[in-house]
Amino acid sequence: MIIVLKPHATKEHAEELMARIAALGLRPLYMPGQERVVLGALGDERTIESLHLDSDPMVESVKPILAPYKLVGREIHPHDTIVDLGSTQIGGGRFTVIAGPCAVENREQLRATADAVKAAGGHGLRGGAYKPRTSPYAFQGLGAEGLALLKEVYQATGLPVVTEVVDAGDVTLVEEHAAAFQVGARNMQNYRLLQVLGKSRMPVILKRGMAAKVDDLLMAAEYILAEGNPNVILCERGITTFETATRNTLDLNAIPVIKQRSHLPVLVDPSHGTGLRELVTPMAKAALACGADGLLVEVHNDPPNALSDGRQSLFPEQFAAMMRELRPIAAAVGKVM
Amino acid sequence: MIIVLKPHATKEHAEELMARIAALGLRPLYMPGQERVVLGALGDERTIESLHLDSDPMVESVKPILAPYKLVGREIHPHDTIVDLGSTQIGGGRFTVIAGPCAVENREQLRATADAVKAAGGHGLRGGAYKPRTSPYAFQGLGAEGLALLKEVYQATGLPVVTEVVDAGDVTLVEEHAAAFQVGARNMQNYRLLQVLGKSRMPVILKRGMAAKVDDLLMAAEYILAEGNPNVILCERGITTFETATRNTLDLNAIPVIKQRSHLPVLVDPSHGTGLRELVTPMAKAALACGADGLLVEVHNDPPNALSDGRQSLFPEQFAAMMRELRPIAAAVGKVM
Amino acid sequence: MIIVLKPHATKEHAEELMARIAALGLRPLYMPGQERVVLGALGDERTIESLHLDSDPMVESVKPILAPYKLVGREIHPHDTIVDLGSTQIGGGRFTVIAGPCAVENREQLRATADAVKAAGGHGLRGGAYKPRTSPYAFQGLGAEGLALLKEVYQATGLPVVTEVVDAGDVTLVEEHAAAFQVGARNMQNYRLLQVLGKSRMPVILKRGMAAKVDDLLMAAEYILAEGNPNVILCERGITTFETATRNTLDLNAIPVIKQRSHLPVLVDPSHGTGLRELVTPMAKAALACGADGLLVEVHNDPPNALSDGRQSLFPEQFAAMMRELRPIAAAVGKVM
Amino acid sequence: MIIVLKPHATKEHAEELMARIAALGLRPLYMPGQERVVLGALGDERTIESLHLDSDPMVESVKPILAPYKLVGREIHPHDTIVDLGSTQIGGGRFTVIAGPCAVENREQLRATADAVKAAGGHGLRGGAYKPRTSPYAFQGLGAEGLALLKEVYQATGLPVVTEVVDAGDVTLVEEHAAAFQVGARNMQNYRLLQVLGKSRMPVILKRGMAAKVDDLLMAAEYILAEGNPNVILCERGITTFETATRNTLDLNAIPVIKQRSHLPVLVDPSHGTGLRELVTPMAKAALACGADGLLVEVHNDPPNALSDGRQSLFPEQFAAMMRELRPIAAAVGKVM
Repeated sequence: MIIVLKPHATKEHAEELMARIAALGLRPLYMPGQERVVLGALGDERTIESLHLDSDPMVESVKPILAPYKLVGREIHPHDTIVDLGSTQIGGGRFTVIAGPCAVENREQLRATADAVKAAGGHGLRGGAYKPRTSPYAFQGLGAEGLALLKEVYQATGLPVVTEVVDAGDVTLVEEHAAAFQVGARNMQNYRLLQVLGKSRMPVILKRGMAAKVDDLLMAAEYILAEGNPNVILCERGITTFETATRNTLDLNAIPVIKQRSHLPVLVDPSHGTGLRELVTPMAKAALACGADGLLVEVHNDPPNALSDGRQSLFPEQFAAMMRELRPIAAAVGKVM
Repeated sequence: MIIVLKPHATKEHAEELMARIAALGLRPLYMPGQERVVLGALGDERTIESLHLDSDPMVESVKPILAPYKLVGREIHPHDTIVDLGSTQIGGGRFTVIAGPCAVENREQLRATADAVKAAGGHGLRGGAYKPRTSPYAFQGLGAEGLALLKEVYQATGLPVVTEVVDAGDVTLVEEHAAAFQVGARNMQNYRLLQVLGKSRMPVILKRGMAAKVDDLLMAAEYILAEGNPNVILCERGITTFETATRNTLDLNAIPVIKQRSHLPVLVDPSHGTGLRELVTPMAKAALACGADGLLVEVHNDPPNALSDGRQSLFPEQFAAMMRELRPIAAAVGKVM
Repeated sequence: MIIVLKPHATKEHAEELMARIAALGLRPLYMPGQERVVLGALGDERTIESLHLDSDPMVESVKPILAPYKLVGREIHPHDTIVDLGSTQIGGGRFTVIAGPCAVENREQLRATADAVKAAGGHGLRGGAYKPRTSPYAFQGLGAEGLALLKEVYQATGLPVVTEVVDAGDVTLVEEHAAAFQVGARNMQNYRLLQVLGKSRMPVILKRGMAAKVDDLLMAAEYILAEGNPNVILCERGITTFETATRNTLDLNAIPVIKQRSHLPVLVDPSHGTGLRELVTPMAKAALACGADGLLVEVHNDPPNALSDGRQSLFPEQFAAMMRELRPIAAAVGKVM
Repeated sequence: MIIVLKPHATKEHAEELMARIAALGLRPLYMPGQERVVLGALGDERTIESLHLDSDPMVESVKPILAPYKLVGREIHPHDTIVDLGSTQIGGGRFTVIAGPCAVENREQLRATADAVKAAGGHGLRGGAYKPRTSPYAFQGLGAEGLALLKEVYQATGLPVVTEVVDAGDVTLVEEHAAAFQVGARNMQNYRLLQVLGKSRMPVILKRGMAAKVDDLLMAAEYILAEGNPNVILCERGITTFETATRNTLDLNAIPVIKQRSHLPVLVDPSHGTGLRELVTPMAKAALACGADGLLVEVHNDPPNALSDGRQSLFPEQFAAMMRELRPIAAAVGKVM
């Protein structure tokens, strides 16, 4: 339920109402606005009728939250969320570019790539220490050693680090080494993991599953917010379709759809979204033009020798060229990058 | 086969070779370039061996055409094709916007919409006289009467007219009234229709089928070129996926893929590609940013009362706003519109 | 609208009502049942209110037809339709197997294959004279010559012939040579073709399009019935999905769904539905087990040298083995074959 | 690599070779056959060249394993695997039916449903204690309490219990209460979970992900076998497609494809595969007819009041009817049930 208080309702009124909501076993939410306070009540909506809020003198209106994603939707949170990521932010008119290798392979590779990202104006560094791979015999990432390298390179370059977490048991360790968690497409509906991430306050970049509708993605994000972590950034990375010319079909329609339905910022990953390095720059431009808040993009100092995803990784000079080509478009659509 | 002639080969040499190719039952192609002439030979490639071209003194090299689409691919036609459309063109650095109602409903509707399109800077008028509808009980279009109205409005506004043709038997009549044929997604593999359109020289806008891979679209275009009509414009209009938030999933990945593989220009239809008017402008911008040569977009003077596709049709003022928003992006990516 | 007459209503009453329905511009339908007569009225349902049928002494009830497919749905036609096909039938507890080559290639091939089909107990012969092929350079079928061969083999074997029609202009010629039209998946929404087939009374086997929902298939069938031809047989032949192990994904869920929604019989094509000969027999058995009325299956006297679809064509001995394996399952599920 | 030993090679020869393989850092496999022993060597195949096995007097032939799934494929394990499940088995000519509610709700519901399953001839009991739900506000299962109820009902009925595990941290507890783990579609690529399950020897029923190709499923199974657990049962439960008439599209093509490529047994889940109770029986029959080794099917003692998946759960009498209808088909295809 959304409970809009009257303009003259005080903070005490709000707290008293929230206590009554909590006493029913519902979860109260406090959302102060410019002119009036809005409260939320999450849980079985029939219960709340016993409070007779409609006849409360401090209550202007009571209405149900229609969307199944209560906290992620715009009904109780109409304004865009801006998430802090180290020294930068995601959302709020910025176009934030987080770039780096698919997997952390060694110190030299990571440092060289990070330097190239920084030199070209990238805002954050991505790199996987835990890699979910289709084959058990493929390189599975450096694990804790990779996390240590990421932290080291962060300290050297100042680029905030985004890295994937694949199991609830790794959350604490990843939190000590990175500026944001990444949840991969295969784990979008690993609800146990999402719940543990919801206990943290570190930002979570949640990638859309290969067969997930936009609403499935929003429901997955709701798991994180429902546990208390509001710092969620969505990421479109391509869906599974019949087309075989590209690794996935990047669904840019999802960007304006998400903007309509949710206040959370959204990135686009044109690397996984296409699977082909020569398609990354055109799709990065398209993502910027249609309203995305930034990119998650793969760059490698030596793509032909990358241990994973080399075919879709940009060469450093391609990344720099992409950044140069994005800037006039950002100016044209009023984004800062 | 692609036969590259030596720089000093004359037109007579080329013609003599083409006659020998034709005598084998193959189809010869003449493609003069800046520095040297290239010939093509379409048909059973084994036959051509009997000509011993490798040892011909005027021949520099002979190589097979690898792609299954011989005429549509870049191997024998590396440079971008530009197609004339009335007073305008599609391809070659322009961003051409063809707009109008889904269906021609009556003179007033068509004229009012066309005036709005022209006033906002649109380059062509679209409007269906023959409407393939899912239900036999739905409005099927005005037919010949609709064609007459389209011609009348063309004469009044100067906007070249694009209209759908759904049957081989209508091709002549449509040709007398329009500047370009449109082949809808449902007819992309109506090969008889494509073959008849290949006998014409009027441009054909060929829309991608809902379940067609990019290569299926290119093969369908090959049917038209193989009959002799080089004036084909491709059109991405969304594919069928599991996502239900939008009518179709607009596959913008297809734009740079098509640009790699084919010399033909390509439009994007953000109206069918999304099914929702509020998504049209963001996706139009994305289409421009990733390299499309223009748009096919639905505008209606009164969308709530449209006989078809009202939900995805722009209001005239939205179309004008979209055109204003596209211009700075066009400037940023170096396109003329 | 569905208009149920009272038990004592006479034929004259029905005819008088139908005349009044027709006078409103609606299409009347006469559906006599065991105990009472049911009338239908197709068209704008609001118009019919002016007849005040609710207060007509001969009318028991009036209710709207909810499904968008009025004639194809079970609302006005609850009982299963049985379609005659030459000396055999499709529907009504039979399991009818129509088999033969993808394309008619020559007299020997067709005759040898037909003899094998007949010897193994097949009920009908399939074979394409007009082949819609992805490439314009591929074998396009023998055309009229192929039709003549089909008729010749029908006369020799007595097997009723099913053959594809790809253009409205060929309908008359095909009708003279075959026992049933086949409309291929690519033409499922070629509405002009469907309308012309609706003028005939020869059965039409309508294949589901690659991206067509079951309801799209039923709406396409409605085009044929709405023109007056009730002899439509549906055919599930696989849909386009992301799976690449098979050519298409055979959607057997569609069989019980179609049986719920429509009275029309439905075949399964396990050849196109899988694309692999070794999968044809298992999927044929599955089709029988889940309620299909028969098969449309590719057999070739010499698959490795077939001009098209050899990889999915059964060898004659495989077809005979499949027929033997189907019989006990048919007995187990109470079907006659 | 697959290393086929000569008929006269002794166990000592095999062990000596395996030690040499292990010394290279590769994983040796011992596969005794009727006539000769076959060894496997998993890992970087180039390394093994240093052993010069081709010239070893006890070695008949050495060949690479072509499939990416080494242990799951038929190359080194041509014969069908049979997995013990409590008092029953899966594979080897049986058709094993595991049935029960989506979620364990309470003792009465579980016991009543289990009694109905047993009375109708079901072979195992399914029921979820941990439920991965799209919404964080939906019933998430009884957890440990549900496991205790499952064990209690197993002790009362003798039906071996299959229950889902959603997190690596729960594996030990589930192992103490059930006869087999179930891995749900959403966790098919939760590789950490798969690796932990690979350390167990309790059977794992691995469900295909919504967007997973058959080969992706086989690769996921490889994760479990690679850790040492050979008791894996695959399960087809429907894939995500554009069709909306059913919850998922049951891909029965996958059954014969899996049988070609892998020795592991495979179940079909017609409940999730259709989402509609009235489709369960037809698709169960189809699954049996095309070669599946059994069913995983939802039955509830009171579907209209089920806390989850009521729409697709069979009533007890429907389950009994389905079992009766399956038996003659099992007889017809030579399966024991």
